[in-house]
Amino acid sequence: MEEILIFGHKNPDTDSICSSMVKQILNEKNGKNNSKAVRIGNINKETEFVLNYLKTEAPELVEKIDDGQKVILVDHNEFGQSVDGIENAKIIGVVDHHRISDFKTSEPLYYTSKPYGCTATILYQDFKAKDLTIDKKEAVLMASAIISDTLLLKSPTTTKHDKIALENLAKIAQIDVESYGLEMLKAGTDLSSFSIEEILNLDAKQVSIKDVKTIVAQVNTASIADVMKKKTELEAGINNIIDEKGIDLFAFLITDIINSNSQVIALGKNASLIEKSYGVKLEDNTALLKGVVSRKKQVIPILTENA
Amino acid sequence: MEEILIFGHKNPDTDSICSSMVKQILNEKNGKNNSKAVRIGNINKETEFVLNYLKTEAPELVEKIDDGQKVILVDHNEFGQSVDGIENAKIIGVVDHHRISDFKTSEPLYYTSKPYGCTATILYQDFKAKDLTIDKKEAVLMASAIISDTLLLKSPTTTKHDKIALENLAKIAQIDVESYGLEMLKAGTDLSSFSIEEILNLDAKQVSIKDVKTIVAQVNTASIADVMKKKTELEAGINNIIDEKGIDLFAFLITDIINSNSQVIALGKNASLIEKSYGVKLEDNTALLKGVVSRKKQVIPILTENA
Repeated sequence: MEEILIFGHKNPDTDSICSSMVKQILNEKNGKNNSKAVRIGNINKETEFVLNYLKTEAPELVEKIDDGQKVILVDHNEFGQSVDGIENAKIIGVVDHHRISDFKTSEPLYYTSKPYGCTATILYQDFKAKDLTIDKKEAVLMASAIISDTLLLKSPTTTKHDKIALENLAKIAQIDVESYGLEMLKAGTDLSSFSIEEILNLDAKQVSIKDVKTIVAQVNTASIADVMKKKTELEAGINNIIDEKGIDLFAFLITDIINSNSQVIALGKNASLIEKSYGVKLEDNTALLKGVVSRKKQVIPILTENA
Repeated sequence: MEEILIFGHKNPDTDSICSSMVKQILNEKNGKNNSKAVRIGNINKETEFVLNYLKTEAPELVEKIDDGQKVILVDHNEFGQSVDGIENAKIIGVVDHHRISDFKTSEPLYYTSKPYGCTATILYQDFKAKDLTIDKKEAVLMASAIISDTLLLKSPTTTKHDKIALENLAKIAQIDVESYGLEMLKAGTDLSSFSIEEILNLDAKQVSIKDVKTIVAQVNTASIADVMKKKTELEAGINNIIDEKGIDLFAFLITDIINSNSQVIALGKNASLIEKSYGVKLEDNTALLKGVVSRKKQVIPILTENA
């Protein structure tokens, strides 16, 4: 039978990896044995923690796919965030929780999208709707994805569905959500092996905010002070990117996952948009944004309103 | 509470009307009382038969929507097939069984698509998944939509899911599928009250097939010969549309619902695409396409392959 590849987005996060693996299992439980989870980028430190916890291997790396390859996308739909060659693939299914954009097919397909905090929450509901049992490994994968995407249910993207799913999954997974979750999130904050350029690119999204060419990059940390030790080098790296790409505003968010705040380093000729948007004063290019953790909900729309 | 409008595509067919009405009921059964089925075009004769059978009113006509209006789309997603103003609406949900194209949102949303023969089959499964009861009226609405879209389960778009749904719905609806279905389909073939322009627009879809600007219009009939009596007037009407809209290929399908064939009238500078696609010779602009009944499965993809 023809193989179907299942994968999440580029620069895969824990939801992209775990939901691919769970979707493969879900298909198998539904009697479809020809699908295979793969990844289209490197495993990050947080996901590595999850895979080590489960003593399981990461999905195989795939960097380009053939024309006509059957695929299922999880945790993304925009072709710009997908694998090279996606335009000529045969997309037979999508499970996602993002806006729909830069996406099209020539045939009808399975598409399940819900405005939840995490793809894995949708998969959890699929298990429930079909009365399928969830084993410990599957529960750890889904719980880890939810903890990651919702920052331990503290991100404003969190819905009641994510909360219910995580509560039930934690029981099956036999994990204490707080302690397991913090350990997992902290593993993801280990920046020691990355260069300044890599740190600035780990999770960077370029968007046009009205006519302001903006990059909002983000790293999670358990200690803002620790990351701020590299402030001078980070600023130099940011200024290089601004010059190279003609960026008007580069906002680098250092997000404290314990206290749910972000320290922003803002550079570029439109840096004052940060001041106007959050009622703060940038001192030496930086300010604390209290309660801000979600780029999707608390940064892009606020900057857009104030631009 | 803010009202949510639910509607199907332009030139609504029975699935578009019935699935809008059923989606409203489904929302209500899920405790959401602020949604309202509407329609964005005239009711056809087939749907009129269904509404008369149920002694129920058609949904209200809406021709344009306001910026920011919350909407749920059923039975379509392409903006070109939707209501005027859709670009600035807030699309919170879609239930559909077509390819995804010409569609985007700025926010995450509910999107359920399955490659089934009919939207109502997806809604039927939603009732089942949530253990909701289906009453007689709801069963008639969904059964009628399935009969219409699958031409009594004879169209190649039919899946086992449509068959199972129709079988179960027919019992609740207390209808004999064959006799009710044929009567309903035949009601839809009554073209006596329509002008030539109206006939050509009853179920017309404009699509770009590579760079060929194409309209594929379709009418159902119990007698191809009956419709072909108007061939001269139909051709004049088609040529008017071609001139007005700059169409490269207008394919008018006259589909025999008893014998499952279609007579095509093809005009426009790319009319030969029909010959190439089906291995037929257009004589006097027309040819019989044996076994062809589905625009979605047997026309659009075949033309696309051959364009």
